[in-house]
Amino acid sequence: MRRTRLADAPCPIARSLDEVGEWWSLLILRDAMRGVTRFDEFQRGIGLATNMLSRRLQALVEAGLLERLPYQDRPPRHGYHLTDKGRDFLPVLVAMAGWGRRWLLPDGAFELIDRETGRAVDPVLVDRNTGEPIRPDRLRAAMAFPSQDATAKDAME
Amino acid sequence: MRRTRLADAPCPIARSLDEVGEWWSLLILRDAMRGVTRFDEFQRGIGLATNMLSRRLQALVEAGLLERLPYQDRPPRHGYHLTDKGRDFLPVLVAMAGWGRRWLLPDGAFELIDRETGRAVDPVLVDRNTGEPIRPDRLRAAMAFPSQDATAKDAME
Repeated sequence: MRRTRLADAPCPIARSLDEVGEWWSLLILRDAMRGVTRFDEFQRGIGLATNMLSRRLQALVEAGLLERLPYQDRPPRHGYHLTDKGRDFLPVLVAMAGWGRRWLLPDGAFELIDRETGRAVDPVLVDRNTGEPIRPDRLRAAMAFPSQDATAKDAME
Repeated sequence: MRRTRLADAPCPIARSLDEVGEWWSLLILRDAMRGVTRFDEFQRGIGLATNMLSRRLQALVEAGLLERLPYQDRPPRHGYHLTDKGRDFLPVLVAMAGWGRRWLLPDGAFELIDRETGRAVDPVLVDRNTGEPIRPDRLRAAMAFPSQDATAKDAME
């Protein structure tokens, strides 16, 4: 029931939640971002039971965020690689890591480091058009098609 | 079991997932971002059963993302307002809305509009220190304390 409702919602947040599926999926994407591709490596990173991990990976392949590519012929073995769609989801995880760092971990316990420069990175969301930081409290959603959704009603006021 | 494991993880993404709780909580935060404060308004926007919505709101209050404030004496009525911690989570939702707009909705079906300027906003994650767009594939996580977690192992290499 949940799937149906959210997949039909005109709100891109609701749709994203539906597409990505579950919390575990975000941890899979997190590890994919670190370069993990093999089933056993995902399992080590996430600690999920084999059948559950298998199901979540398959769902991410079906949703087009991961693709399954062979890395060995005998016996046949496959790895899971981010697609463009999957890679484009990573800013969501980076924003989440920033929030967790600020509110849930002791100061200095965690940093995101740029591998190439070796420097700590402090993610902030700006408007690509103006370069100004985005003020989420000033945003409203505008939808091009009418719907039952409250967000849509809001936009049509 | 899930709660314990994620809450103990040194990874700020895992901790954030644990703290925020469920997909539904993100829709509650989305509506709070639009200025929704009253129980019946949340219910209209999200379409969740009364007892489930009530539980999710309470969990967000306990996690410190929302606070419950009286808006009427007789009969006593309370509204739910974002705290600083809750407001600071909104970039995660904005990043998610951006992804959903790009990958899940028809072109032009959805825009985020800045209420003050009336212009469409295109959220992009940059490094506060350099102003450069963040390349998630170039990031690594650095943790100040050792752990079993694969992300932590990665950082200590």
